[in-house]
Amino acid sequence: MIEAVVMPGPHQPLEVRQFAEPRLEAGAILLRTLGSEVCGTDVHLWHGQLAGVPYPIIPGHVSVGQVAAIGGQAADVDGRPLAVGDIVTFLDVYGSCGRCWYCTVAQASTRCPQRRVYGITLPAEEGLLGGWGQYIYLRPGVHVVAVPPELPWTTLLAAGCGLPTALHAVERADVRFGDVVVIQGSGPVGLSAAILAQLQGAGQVVVVGGPTLRLNMAEQLGADAVVDIATTDAAERIDIIHELTNGRGADVTIEATGVASAVPEGMRLTRDAGRYVVVGQYTNAGDVSFNPHLDLNQKHLDVRGCWGSDVGHVYRAVRVLARYHTRFPWANFVSGHYSLAQAQQALEDVAAQRVVKALIIPQSDPPERIGDAERAIQE
Amino acid sequence: MIEAVVMPGPHQPLEVRQFAEPRLEAGAILLRTLGSEVCGTDVHLWHGQLAGVPYPIIPGHVSVGQVAAIGGQAADVDGRPLAVGDIVTFLDVYGSCGRCWYCTVAQASTRCPQRRVYGITLPAEEGLLGGWGQYIYLRPGVHVVAVPPELPWTTLLAAGCGLPTALHAVERADVRFGDVVVIQGSGPVGLSAAILAQLQGAGQVVVVGGPTLRLNMAEQLGADAVVDIATTDAAERIDIIHELTNGRGADVTIEATGVASAVPEGMRLTRDAGRYVVVGQYTNAGDVSFNPHLDLNQKHLDVRGCWGSDVGHVYRAVRVLARYHTRFPWANFVSGHYSLAQAQQALEDVAAQRVVKALIIPQSDPPERIGDAERAIQE
Amino acid sequence: MIEAVVMPGPHQPLEVRQFAEPRLEAGAILLRTLGSEVCGTDVHLWHGQLAGVPYPIIPGHVSVGQVAAIGGQAADVDGRPLAVGDIVTFLDVYGSCGRCWYCTVAQASTRCPQRRVYGITLPAEEGLLGGWGQYIYLRPGVHVVAVPPELPWTTLLAAGCGLPTALHAVERADVRFGDVVVIQGSGPVGLSAAILAQLQGAGQVVVVGGPTLRLNMAEQLGADAVVDIATTDAAERIDIIHELTNGRGADVTIEATGVASAVPEGMRLTRDAGRYVVVGQYTNAGDVSFNPHLDLNQKHLDVRGCWGSDVGHVYRAVRVLARYHTRFPWANFVSGHYSLAQAQQALEDVAAQRVVKALIIPQSDPPERIGDAERAIQE
Amino acid sequence: MIEAVVMPGPHQPLEVRQFAEPRLEAGAILLRTLGSEVCGTDVHLWHGQLAGVPYPIIPGHVSVGQVAAIGGQAADVDGRPLAVGDIVTFLDVYGSCGRCWYCTVAQASTRCPQRRVYGITLPAEEGLLGGWGQYIYLRPGVHVVAVPPELPWTTLLAAGCGLPTALHAVERADVRFGDVVVIQGSGPVGLSAAILAQLQGAGQVVVVGGPTLRLNMAEQLGADAVVDIATTDAAERIDIIHELTNGRGADVTIEATGVASAVPEGMRLTRDAGRYVVVGQYTNAGDVSFNPHLDLNQKHLDVRGCWGSDVGHVYRAVRVLARYHTRFPWANFVSGHYSLAQAQQALEDVAAQRVVKALIIPQSDPPERIGDAERAIQE
Repeated sequence: MIEAVVMPGPHQPLEVRQFAEPRLEAGAILLRTLGSEVCGTDVHLWHGQLAGVPYPIIPGHVSVGQVAAIGGQAADVDGRPLAVGDIVTFLDVYGSCGRCWYCTVAQASTRCPQRRVYGITLPAEEGLLGGWGQYIYLRPGVHVVAVPPELPWTTLLAAGCGLPTALHAVERADVRFGDVVVIQGSGPVGLSAAILAQLQGAGQVVVVGGPTLRLNMAEQLGADAVVDIATTDAAERIDIIHELTNGRGADVTIEATGVASAVPEGMRLTRDAGRYVVVGQYTNAGDVSFNPHLDLNQKHLDVRGCWGSDVGHVYRAVRVLARYHTRFPWANFVSGHYSLAQAQQALEDVAAQRVVKALIIPQSDPPERIGDAERAIQE
Repeated sequence: MIEAVVMPGPHQPLEVRQFAEPRLEAGAILLRTLGSEVCGTDVHLWHGQLAGVPYPIIPGHVSVGQVAAIGGQAADVDGRPLAVGDIVTFLDVYGSCGRCWYCTVAQASTRCPQRRVYGITLPAEEGLLGGWGQYIYLRPGVHVVAVPPELPWTTLLAAGCGLPTALHAVERADVRFGDVVVIQGSGPVGLSAAILAQLQGAGQVVVVGGPTLRLNMAEQLGADAVVDIATTDAAERIDIIHELTNGRGADVTIEATGVASAVPEGMRLTRDAGRYVVVGQYTNAGDVSFNPHLDLNQKHLDVRGCWGSDVGHVYRAVRVLARYHTRFPWANFVSGHYSLAQAQQALEDVAAQRVVKALIIPQSDPPERIGDAERAIQE
Repeated sequence: MIEAVVMPGPHQPLEVRQFAEPRLEAGAILLRTLGSEVCGTDVHLWHGQLAGVPYPIIPGHVSVGQVAAIGGQAADVDGRPLAVGDIVTFLDVYGSCGRCWYCTVAQASTRCPQRRVYGITLPAEEGLLGGWGQYIYLRPGVHVVAVPPELPWTTLLAAGCGLPTALHAVERADVRFGDVVVIQGSGPVGLSAAILAQLQGAGQVVVVGGPTLRLNMAEQLGADAVVDIATTDAAERIDIIHELTNGRGADVTIEATGVASAVPEGMRLTRDAGRYVVVGQYTNAGDVSFNPHLDLNQKHLDVRGCWGSDVGHVYRAVRVLARYHTRFPWANFVSGHYSLAQAQQALEDVAAQRVVKALIIPQSDPPERIGDAERAIQE
Repeated sequence: MIEAVVMPGPHQPLEVRQFAEPRLEAGAILLRTLGSEVCGTDVHLWHGQLAGVPYPIIPGHVSVGQVAAIGGQAADVDGRPLAVGDIVTFLDVYGSCGRCWYCTVAQASTRCPQRRVYGITLPAEEGLLGGWGQYIYLRPGVHVVAVPPELPWTTLLAAGCGLPTALHAVERADVRFGDVVVIQGSGPVGLSAAILAQLQGAGQVVVVGGPTLRLNMAEQLGADAVVDIATTDAAERIDIIHELTNGRGADVTIEATGVASAVPEGMRLTRDAGRYVVVGQYTNAGDVSFNPHLDLNQKHLDVRGCWGSDVGHVYRAVRVLARYHTRFPWANFVSGHYSLAQAQQALEDVAAQRVVKALIIPQSDPPERIGDAERAIQE
């Protein structure tokens, strides 16, 4: 039998349940889970803030595992055949179809209506379709990305879902060399955006957020300045940004807060003809008001909503991590490792912001890299 | 002496005043006015709704004239030397500097702080710096565009400032072949946008506006459907657009209304991952509220404020008019010609929407085309 | 039994052969062919100029048919369920996978290695996988686009594969309002490009090609000027274009010739900082030389190869045709209808440029529009 | 009297000549030269390889100086008033007009026909219009960029003209996160491009060039791999890049070699649907041949010529240097400092590739930073 954590419903305690070992369809993959992320979305799930979730579910939408079995043949995104023992991650979004009107004509694959998400919108009764278990069942067609040997998988999980989300947002922001980039929010998405802005040649990166612990981390990651929302109001923050930018405002602002009032504030933090990407309004946090003349039309502002991420973002995120993880300490995002039995605690620690991010580690002694993994498999 | 209409201040009656013939600086041009547009902006000026206007002013920001004198040498945007008798238009925006941070680094020339606008932000005490007079003084450096011989100048004025504004907005909308384009507003900007959407290969063009007179004109211009705001509410309009678009909403929506509540409505008229250009919020019409999650982030929407126009837009507008004015009846936008003495009446007719657009024609018998103009000059 | 034309191999006479009625897999569709295009690619096929063709094949890559049977359920690109009697076209490219590295990470679906093409790269021994037969078998997953009721299907075939190809090229050309667009080549791709340039608001459209018949057609389609390659050499053509463009050259040039020497010539026809799209080098026509300093680097030129088309291009092409086919006489591209037995003649007439395009019409009396089709089905 | 180095004509020995102290026009600036770059373009000048050079000239197109006098008032690109003692650089391109058709309609300012270049196209008889002298005369309108206090001006000169050129090329390359970027050429432009590719989040940076000294520097700057052109032929290089890229080729290739045959090779180094920027063909190095079908059209390749740089590139280059000069050792590009009297030696050392780059330092003891400068002024 296989153990996995189940979230029975909103506000109900997590449980470790037993699952039968699945039979593999052609093209399916069984992953032995090395680790799975616990992030703010899991807190949203537990609070019942997301619509259409088919509880009970096995949470865990970003995970790394080792291929334990393959239903015939399967390949990674690069087209390389997978083999037992490979360490891989996968796109949590299962079923972005590549065929519908949104995927083909509109080329807006993150709005594909076929999308189902591991750990979020797939019910536990359909199987091991979330990362907080000993094994994960990858249905045929799930996009798999190999973890490069030089990249510790724990670092990949530390970056977690925040990195491809931030990567999508920063791509959409069209940062130009030397731009001033303001990030609203210092959670995992905001912190990754602060790194990625530097990997776009930004001239100045300012993180607006809190609490102090996270702002300190922003500075460690290279932010040129931080602004604490606990000690400033919106008008003061706009003044601060204008002082830093010769009176103009940020060339690019990226919202990663989840707070509705951050949006009109972000418009005002941005210079005329700048770009403002809104990626943090993942759940409905209510309405806000703004002034279409002053905040948008006269400013000649670009405001860009940014939803989800897709296989390209995950693939590129892995490439970026492999190349730059020794320069930027993504690994520090994680402040705690938890066993399956400790999942409830992990969730509560994330909810209370006692940690930036937590990992569920189902195995007692997982290998750190592929070399280790191969030895482990052989033993 | 030269006669010109002066607007002494908000809500004050227009007056025809006498001006001395100006002496020409090097590079300056004196135009004998053939005609000048009366548009909604002039009504805003008269109502005192624009900030920073140095009353008294000579209104008239889009005009056509015949070169009467040149201070030495001057050339049009194409670099061709100008000669007395040439029929030309010019960029109302004088002084977009091409040198400041906004013009060079940000490449956002319509946000150049040096911009001054003929007929709007240049005081009458500085001279003939508006179109509603017998002559217009073009300061050195004003961008001049020759009116091609095949294009009647009255048609150019009928299109007026609405055309380059709409052209800027439609450029910014990235219309793709076959797209459904919804235009909010049926004034001069909206009507030109409805034409230009067809000149981008739109698959369907829907105009939402009023009153009936203007919606009829929209249909004459090729709109596939019109929606009357007098007989529908916002929810109904959203339903109508969804019915026309397989439930998805418009690929592109262009706002040209001046009404703040049109902006959140426009977000909802647009499909997921579509583009929404806001060009009609030229004056401050108050705040509105929207939902950042539903209307922007989850929609993966692009919202693009669009301010003003620049020499490229005017140049391209003249090219488009010259090529397509026989196919699309821009000339019909004008419903009345007025002398200088009738300027007050023209303003009131536009304000009351009794006409789509009015022209001030200072000369009693202006030539229609260059051939006529040359004969007139020779006589 | 079902009749279809088979091309046994290069330079071998076409034959009409009998095929058994296929059994439908789940999601497959059987189309009763209304018509199928004969185009230059078919001549290339017959001359053996394309690599990797699994002769014998059933030619015909752009076709229109009526749904005769469905293997369970199937939907068109818009997601609407298909029904027997619907008139549809389909993407000749079968299997652009939407999943591989090129489709997802690079977003270059026309370079997807999985692509197979109806009428070109699918062997006759696998079934009715080309358009020159009484029926066409659409494998599960073939992208189907419904033909709108207002669009005669013969017009869609007249536009044929040239239209989505040209649409892809013109999209890639970023034509701006008022631009001068030069088209090299007056075959089906070039002629459609000449129309589409007008549907991008081009200020001037010049077609360089021949013979006279086709240049006349270019003028009927709205070209502002034509240049006959039979009576000019490259230097003269460059002079002509410079005279038409104030000495600068074309803002945009689109190559659709198939002649290698057209490429350096096209670079020189284009202005500094212009865009040059190369879409006509579909087969290997040899090497050419150019000067990287003068023709590319100092010119600050953009040169854009453009390969194939995808479902979005076909979808948009159908939208554009439905909206604009009464304005631009695409229907005139076709100069001959041929039965299955006359396919050899059709091929030779196209090869000899006796016709711009030919259609294979397998049924003796096909309906022109859906209303007729429904009646025909009912009878 | 003021001393400056004069290049009397191609292949003639440099001379130090005396110039009278200039009188300042309104808006002009007199700079006390701190240093000026010697780069490959100066070698081209000396070899007579550039057309239209009005010998004799004062060479030196990228320089840093201290404001010694101002003709009334002048401001930097940010709009901040300049003061005596400020350390600044300036755009060598004087007169990019911001007003002509290329600057406004085409938005291709590096093709502005008004451009004149300090140190290249301005004759010595018109004054101190090059950097290799004790003072430089900045005509009114020359774009000035302040050197930030944290940036040593010697580092700015070490980056020199290669950095804004590379920045322009890399901007035009649209590098995406994780992309494989191949740089052809290991001179100053290529080396800066190798840094900037990392500042765009490239996943892998490969430099193809030589000699060993420069390839070693490329590795110090962070290149993941280097390929020596002295020990490989074109076919081998293509094989190497394919091996590094899963058989696909580079996502982005940037040419910075000056060798014509590099261009078709670069097309083949790049993957299907990739981007290839050609920036190194600054002088006419002859014709080359390529295959339009295989190298361009079927590849769906983007080839982008890239000419010169403009004020935005210089401004952004200064921002990037200020932020990242401690991470990437641009300062190491300089291997020699030379007095005015040693200019001939500097030129010959650069020509012989004995140094990557040389600096002319006219003052015996120039200050390193603004604080020092102020003290020097006060003393």
